[in-house]
Amino acid sequence: MNFLKLFLLFSLLPVAFSHETFDSRLLPRPLILEYPDIAETHFNDLENELRLHCDSWRFSVEANNVNPWKTIPEECAGYVKDYLTGRAYAFDLERVSKEAGVYAKSVELNGDGKDVWIFDIDDTLLSNLPYYADHGYGLKLYEEVLSLGFKVFLLTGRTEGKRKVTVENLNNAGFREWHKLILRSADDHEKLAIIYKSEKRSEMEKEGYRLLGNSGDQWSDLLGTSVALRSFKLPNPMYYIP
Amino acid sequence: MNFLKLFLLFSLLPVAFSHETFDSRLLPRPLILEYPDIAETHFNDLENELRLHCDSWRFSVEANNVNPWKTIPEECAGYVKDYLTGRAYAFDLERVSKEAGVYAKSVELNGDGKDVWIFDIDDTLLSNLPYYADHGYGLKLYEEVLSLGFKVFLLTGRTEGKRKVTVENLNNAGFREWHKLILRSADDHEKLAIIYKSEKRSEMEKEGYRLLGNSGDQWSDLLGTSVALRSFKLPNPMYYIP
Repeated sequence: MNFLKLFLLFSLLPVAFSHETFDSRLLPRPLILEYPDIAETHFNDLENELRLHCDSWRFSVEANNVNPWKTIPEECAGYVKDYLTGRAYAFDLERVSKEAGVYAKSVELNGDGKDVWIFDIDDTLLSNLPYYADHGYGLKLYEEVLSLGFKVFLLTGRTEGKRKVTVENLNNAGFREWHKLILRSADDHEKLAIIYKSEKRSEMEKEGYRLLGNSGDQWSDLLGTSVALRSFKLPNPMYYIP
Repeated sequence: MNFLKLFLLFSLLPVAFSHETFDSRLLPRPLILEYPDIAETHFNDLENELRLHCDSWRFSVEANNVNPWKTIPEECAGYVKDYLTGRAYAFDLERVSKEAGVYAKSVELNGDGKDVWIFDIDDTLLSNLPYYADHGYGLKLYEEVLSLGFKVFLLTGRTEGKRKVTVENLNNAGFREWHKLILRSADDHEKLAIIYKSEKRSEMEKEGYRLLGNSGDQWSDLLGTSVALRSFKLPNPMYYIP
């Protein structure tokens, strides 16, 4: 902001130096020097206030302090849209993917085919946002854990009836290899996601799998029982699934 | 930013209108009109880039995706300082406290004296930052859960030898009532915080306490085993304790 002040100083200098010679009726000097400054300050105050507020809401959501939540706060709708359509969401996704990759490479695999990485599907491997849907969202980490020798389990809240379309969606987005795709059976329809997913992870453990990593955009993908050794929370300020 | 552009337009208008009459040798017009604009754009680009990067780092830390971490990324030192000394940290603390309060009021207490809220001490009840140290940091939620009838357990990584000074610190900051203050005994010195705190929570459970809420600035205050029904993560982009 200091640079901005410097710039304003420079841009106003000619006014200061020239006001003796130029026609002061053209634009009254006090108006130029004072009015926009006050209005801009006020506007920036409001903008900063809203950003503080919505930043804080987003942090609380991502740290699972706000829980449950039903909708984006009305006043943060524009903020969330900017976040998702701007570069910040991409930045955040990239970082989670990178951190997960660092961990995946560091963790010692047993190599007996029982080392597991779990992926949620919607807004973890597949995106609802057109840009991300077309740009291999989630694919990088996926390829990485596969090449390291993890067994990949896909654990989704989608129902069994959507198996075929889900496989198509996955294939179309470049995901072609997994050990198991787990969808909700009729028995699981009424369960909270956190219960359903915990039960499925517990079954994996009972089958002797070691749950080393888990990636999901919802805390209900990651918490509960039989949690993975490390969980990676992808950002999602759009909706909350209990 | 549109408003800023408008402001610049207005502030440059007199230059445009007056350049015939004022001494153009004083400050050459192209310099004024072009140079700061480019420099400012470049500066804003860098600033935005750094903010995106450091925002993303902070999110990853608060969502426990970056784990462990040793230091604040060098390039984010100024960002973290601004965050802590500006209003954003206060905003975030306030929100966590508020969300915890909403939950505390909503949860049904058994009323048998076994309903527990756990607080970490450093950077949860007591702050290292001078401003917060003097402004009842953490006190509001503390008073709230006490008045609701929770039993308060203080669970800190400080060692038993610091009991006296810890009590003094707490009293000086306005904390005078708790059920139990648990510090590290000699046996616990070598343990990771997450192990030590899990063990202490497990002991509480064995004594019949219901761990309904837990507030801490470190994930190692909140995760592990015998986790509370709800955990509240206070922001801390300063340091990480495993």
